[in-house]
Amino acid sequence: MTAQDTDVIRLTELLKDAPKNWGKWGPDDEVGSLNYLDAAQVLRGVSAARQGKVFTLQVDVGRKGGDPVWPGRAGAIRTQVIDKGHWISGRAPNFPGGLEYADDFVSMFLQGSTQYDALGHVWYDDTLWNGYPADSTCGGMNKASVHPIAVRGVVGHGVLLDMARHRGKEVLGKGETFTHEDLMQCAEAQGTAISKRDILLVRTGWIGSFYTQTQAEFYDGFIEPGLTYSPELVQWFADMEIPNLVTDTIANEVTTDPVSGVVLPLHAALMRNLGITLTEIAQLDDLATDCAGDKQFDFLYTAGPLKIVDGTGAPVNPVVIK
Amino acid sequence: MTAQDTDVIRLTELLKDAPKNWGKWGPDDEVGSLNYLDAAQVLRGVSAARQGKVFTLQVDVGRKGGDPVWPGRAGAIRTQVIDKGHWISGRAPNFPGGLEYADDFVSMFLQGSTQYDALGHVWYDDTLWNGYPADSTCGGMNKASVHPIAVRGVVGHGVLLDMARHRGKEVLGKGETFTHEDLMQCAEAQGTAISKRDILLVRTGWIGSFYTQTQAEFYDGFIEPGLTYSPELVQWFADMEIPNLVTDTIANEVTTDPVSGVVLPLHAALMRNLGITLTEIAQLDDLATDCAGDKQFDFLYTAGPLKIVDGTGAPVNPVVIK
Amino acid sequence: MTAQDTDVIRLTELLKDAPKNWGKWGPDDEVGSLNYLDAAQVLRGVSAARQGKVFTLQVDVGRKGGDPVWPGRAGAIRTQVIDKGHWISGRAPNFPGGLEYADDFVSMFLQGSTQYDALGHVWYDDTLWNGYPADSTCGGMNKASVHPIAVRGVVGHGVLLDMARHRGKEVLGKGETFTHEDLMQCAEAQGTAISKRDILLVRTGWIGSFYTQTQAEFYDGFIEPGLTYSPELVQWFADMEIPNLVTDTIANEVTTDPVSGVVLPLHAALMRNLGITLTEIAQLDDLATDCAGDKQFDFLYTAGPLKIVDGTGAPVNPVVIK
Amino acid sequence: MTAQDTDVIRLTELLKDAPKNWGKWGPDDEVGSLNYLDAAQVLRGVSAARQGKVFTLQVDVGRKGGDPVWPGRAGAIRTQVIDKGHWISGRAPNFPGGLEYADDFVSMFLQGSTQYDALGHVWYDDTLWNGYPADSTCGGMNKASVHPIAVRGVVGHGVLLDMARHRGKEVLGKGETFTHEDLMQCAEAQGTAISKRDILLVRTGWIGSFYTQTQAEFYDGFIEPGLTYSPELVQWFADMEIPNLVTDTIANEVTTDPVSGVVLPLHAALMRNLGITLTEIAQLDDLATDCAGDKQFDFLYTAGPLKIVDGTGAPVNPVVIK
Repeated sequence: MTAQDTDVIRLTELLKDAPKNWGKWGPDDEVGSLNYLDAAQVLRGVSAARQGKVFTLQVDVGRKGGDPVWPGRAGAIRTQVIDKGHWISGRAPNFPGGLEYADDFVSMFLQGSTQYDALGHVWYDDTLWNGYPADSTCGGMNKASVHPIAVRGVVGHGVLLDMARHRGKEVLGKGETFTHEDLMQCAEAQGTAISKRDILLVRTGWIGSFYTQTQAEFYDGFIEPGLTYSPELVQWFADMEIPNLVTDTIANEVTTDPVSGVVLPLHAALMRNLGITLTEIAQLDDLATDCAGDKQFDFLYTAGPLKIVDGTGAPVNPVVIK
Repeated sequence: MTAQDTDVIRLTELLKDAPKNWGKWGPDDEVGSLNYLDAAQVLRGVSAARQGKVFTLQVDVGRKGGDPVWPGRAGAIRTQVIDKGHWISGRAPNFPGGLEYADDFVSMFLQGSTQYDALGHVWYDDTLWNGYPADSTCGGMNKASVHPIAVRGVVGHGVLLDMARHRGKEVLGKGETFTHEDLMQCAEAQGTAISKRDILLVRTGWIGSFYTQTQAEFYDGFIEPGLTYSPELVQWFADMEIPNLVTDTIANEVTTDPVSGVVLPLHAALMRNLGITLTEIAQLDDLATDCAGDKQFDFLYTAGPLKIVDGTGAPVNPVVIK
Repeated sequence: MTAQDTDVIRLTELLKDAPKNWGKWGPDDEVGSLNYLDAAQVLRGVSAARQGKVFTLQVDVGRKGGDPVWPGRAGAIRTQVIDKGHWISGRAPNFPGGLEYADDFVSMFLQGSTQYDALGHVWYDDTLWNGYPADSTCGGMNKASVHPIAVRGVVGHGVLLDMARHRGKEVLGKGETFTHEDLMQCAEAQGTAISKRDILLVRTGWIGSFYTQTQAEFYDGFIEPGLTYSPELVQWFADMEIPNLVTDTIANEVTTDPVSGVVLPLHAALMRNLGITLTEIAQLDDLATDCAGDKQFDFLYTAGPLKIVDGTGAPVNPVVIK
Repeated sequence: MTAQDTDVIRLTELLKDAPKNWGKWGPDDEVGSLNYLDAAQVLRGVSAARQGKVFTLQVDVGRKGGDPVWPGRAGAIRTQVIDKGHWISGRAPNFPGGLEYADDFVSMFLQGSTQYDALGHVWYDDTLWNGYPADSTCGGMNKASVHPIAVRGVVGHGVLLDMARHRGKEVLGKGETFTHEDLMQCAEAQGTAISKRDILLVRTGWIGSFYTQTQAEFYDGFIEPGLTYSPELVQWFADMEIPNLVTDTIANEVTTDPVSGVVLPLHAALMRNLGITLTEIAQLDDLATDCAGDKQFDFLYTAGPLKIVDGTGAPVNPVVIK
């Protein structure tokens, strides 16, 4: 992000009357709205697994040609520790029996692939989710890291809202926005109900488009399509008790709110204030094609982000079962 | 591994009559026995999710005190990219609205946490799973990498076999072995059936013991407990069409076969020859405690290892639903 | 490099009559023409240190805005291990007396900054410098790595040849070439002698230009200026017993030879065949400005590349004393 | 470090009357006592290069068996990006002419090899060298980083003080201490003068001993030998205007002051207060053997630590010329 601060309204002011779930699950809570996913919700999700179809939602890691990341981050670098070449060159270990093996290594931004954000990943007013102080992020997330989310795991009833298909597009345009009312209309057009405590998967086609154009084209005038802030939208997410918002964009919302000029206000309103977990850079295209075909847009959603101690986020390959 | 080759029998000889599944799923197959996990198996797994309980099976990544890894590998290193300190020191970006954030980075061995092995991760006789040449591993797994496993995802009916509890121990001893017949006796004692195409989770208590002793103690005379090779055991895994073996040890079998002296013969017989995926370093203790309590030892098992392109393995946080 | 092989002449053919120094320093030699730098040459270098001026030649590592690297490599990533934030957030160690500290971490391509190439870094015909087989590079340089160069260190009499200034330019154009005869004319114009066994530092202004334009401009139609292949040029380097060629470009020569179409033929002719060490991505601008001012274009050149075991190259910050 | 704070005296109190060079070179200074190394000192160093002998002082990076590092840090990990295996497996680029190459990657602590400390690397009382605030270290050294040291380079007159040989030992014992007076006696015994503004290289044999024992032995009851704090020693370093202290230990002084119980008081007194640069983990054994042979204990010392932007330290391979 290279945006400059101007006379744009501050989040403090913009969200001064916005709903908060702080304290709702006790002063030590670090998983927020995932608390909504109780055993009943798990079983509601399970009941949607009717066909035995499986989909995985992570983008590739370390693909030739690069991985989609927020400007300023870099894609994962996979390097080789050992392979058959070690035996060819005579530098390999010699195991009794003759077994040989290959090993590798990765260097990556923890926010550099499909990933769960820690609830404390973003903040304003020097305060994180649940009231934790911002300086608790120093050197690692002492509070509201991704670790308790990963330990808990995410299992529930998921619903795909295919905004791109709903609008008759391969991919939404740069900076193209939509609201919670658009989500409801999309659901209605799909013949899908949105129920309380559903995990919402919103597809824009954006991440898929990374692989069909040059990086120069993808990043040129970088502004993602996505949900856009309004007080009503925030209240809707609060009332619906949405535990988790999953999108195929890097930042889960339009990069800059076109009305207020604020950068990423929904990160503040949904994640920092309501404790809704955000899952970004998901690859939803194959799932969406299947849903368009069989008209089943709901499913059992499961996700096990890596258990990164003190992490601001963790890569994940969610598994969806229809 | 620092073992020396001596006059130990070669794997070629040891396994010359052993069963192979090469070609069974076509010449281009890279996921092996995971092919057994068809829609019917997925739904059989789903039917075991009856209580709405969720368990995650990864060990912590980057825990203070270190992570358990095979000697010669190193634990993950998480470092900080940005946090509140950047704003304190005045080096942070300035977003309109005032949002602040934290980011981090990880450097890790891809076999350095709970992980799925690529089917081509180990080999002998210059040939990998399905007959791919060993030099296809050079510079990255050109064949039988972990990527197609991650794209497919792993979903099926899982069964926990708690060998430690079965033997009345907190943790099996260094080098302590057991066989498929022991697994069957354990299942019977637990009142659990082992059915064809079950995903087997075998608990020794070994990884849990990493956290209750010093590293010096854990690694001293390093030899893990585990399954031990016999032709009958290999045939049993073949006949039972086991798609995936998950253990709480670093190498899924006793490190050195005490009879033949061969290192990791089951990696050769089960993974390289039969295409059975191996999942290592799983944390099974909490799941086991729960199973011992409610006597439900089977469940829906789901796993989405990271989609590492050309990877020899990929970290994973499996999610189990009872 | 993304170039395609076409009907371009092979290096085998192009260099079939080219001079080689293989075996000249024994069958086990790994430092090649650095052998020319004996005690007499060291003292000849020392004698050029007459004013007490010091210059360092590395480019910055991890500069905001990026580091200049060959396309396909990535710049260094420096991340934080500990800093004052750890004490602010209460996660820091508590040392008797109250000392506090900061630590950091780097992930980088070993060819991703100013660097010495190992003599075996490039090859053709399956053979490296001195006749070592190319498969000895598998998994790390078993032969002709950068390590023996780093252990030896590089000290000698250096001469700056400022081709950019000689041609009256800030920076040579993309793909602009020059020959050894141009170097001699440049030296003459500067009033500098080129003597046998001199370390040659050739300035094009190219790396400096990285910092005055956008990366898109710098990399657009990527082809660096530099020396261009001819049999006479190769013979001249052989006859002059040049131990080390240092340039302010990423690859030390024009990227593609405009006559033959061969990529990097001088890497083959000078490094692989003659054992001349190559030092790339040097920052020569400040040194050049000073030389233009005081007309002293020669100096004591010292360089200690990092002692990377088995490395293909190693970062270095050469120190020049006039 | 895992030491606990007890009733040990605070550095504030211990050093309340200790000399400081803050402000001596202006309010923006970041290189401290290196300012003593003016052109005259450079030429004094040059004059000591009389034989044409060259020594390099870095320890190996990524040696099999491990690198010596402070407990809690980890050794460098070198991994492979490309090598001949890529051509064997058919995944390599195809360059016109047929050139092939190898590349590699390193992940390392910037304080994890022979290294220059940034002057701001350690501090107490919330204040760094020259009075910079400690929170300027957050997210990277905004002040007093290693970068200006690397840009300047270090060149001067060096003197080896071989304390191990002086005491008739291969290596000093764990926790064995010595003072400035011992240094002077050592110099006298060697027949070496210590002059103002000399760069001091003090040898204990400690780092060399890492390679002749197991890591368990080396780290057992970890306490390094080294200089020990006294007000007189600090004053001597101040009066002698020592610009740089180089040792073959990881922390340049006895780990814990046996009198006060304070950890690393000389880091505070010499580096933070006087601006003396510290160079740690140097390999001095070969140089020492040579000096013992020819009785020339002084030399031209040159060092170019890597130009790590905002770094807390930087690896270096110093080059010494006798």
